[in-house]
Amino acid sequence: MHNNQVMEQISYAAQRPNLDAVFAALADPTRRAILSRLAAGEASVNEIAAPFEMSQPAVSRHLKVLERAGLIERDVDRQRRPARLKAEPMATAVSWLEEFKQFWSSSFDQLDGLLEELKKVEAKGGE
Amino acid sequence: MHNNQVMEQISYAAQRPNLDAVFAALADPTRRAILSRLAAGEASVNEIAAPFEMSQPAVSRHLKVLERAGLIERDVDRQRRPARLKAEPMATAVSWLEEFKQFWSSSFDQLDGLLEELKKVEAKGGE
Repeated sequence: MHNNQVMEQISYAAQRPNLDAVFAALADPTRRAILSRLAAGEASVNEIAAPFEMSQPAVSRHLKVLERAGLIERDVDRQRRPARLKAEPMATAVSWLEEFKQFWSSSFDQLDGLLEELKKVEAKGGE
Repeated sequence: MHNNQVMEQISYAAQRPNLDAVFAALADPTRRAILSRLAAGEASVNEIAAPFEMSQPAVSRHLKVLERAGLIERDVDRQRRPARLKAEPMATAVSWLEEFKQFWSSSFDQLDGLLEELKKVEAKGGE
């Protein structure tokens, strides 16, 4: 592989995803469902629209939002213009969220404690 | 602890966070900055507004969005009404995103491969 070709691919892959656009794209149940559908493989607008009982223009609008957020890419060359999942921006979103992990884990630990206590209470017949 | 008190706390903690509201709340750099600020400890509207050079009403609007998404809670009793981080909905967001982990990991593996290749090319003097 040529040096500049490698550089080009690295610079493309290293582009910092726009967290505003990524989170905004994810804030819609239809778009999340489309991403789940694309996790099973690339699909054309018609193929995506079918199971969702959505119009093709509605799907196209959602695809545009996902594309701008970098979460999918579409083939320009091929007539069906299939959409394909690009999950990397999700990794960035997760890495931002995981800075807060200590805050949610400690609360879940407390919940575990509560569940244990409930089991004991129930085992004793609710005393 | 009483059985119904335990139940109440579990049912509260087990409430399914609204992913639409959570992702929408996260889709704003100011709101993400406020969450980071609150990770350092509870703060009043004034305390939150100060470092951001934002008006108090602007901060209040952001806090309302965060509160509705379940990402913060505010003390009603105390006069300063300090806001406090509630990170659990982030855990739900991460768990949704992690279903896609295989897709971003494989791409990052490919990037690792590219970086290795680049190092070799450079070591050889860019041939």
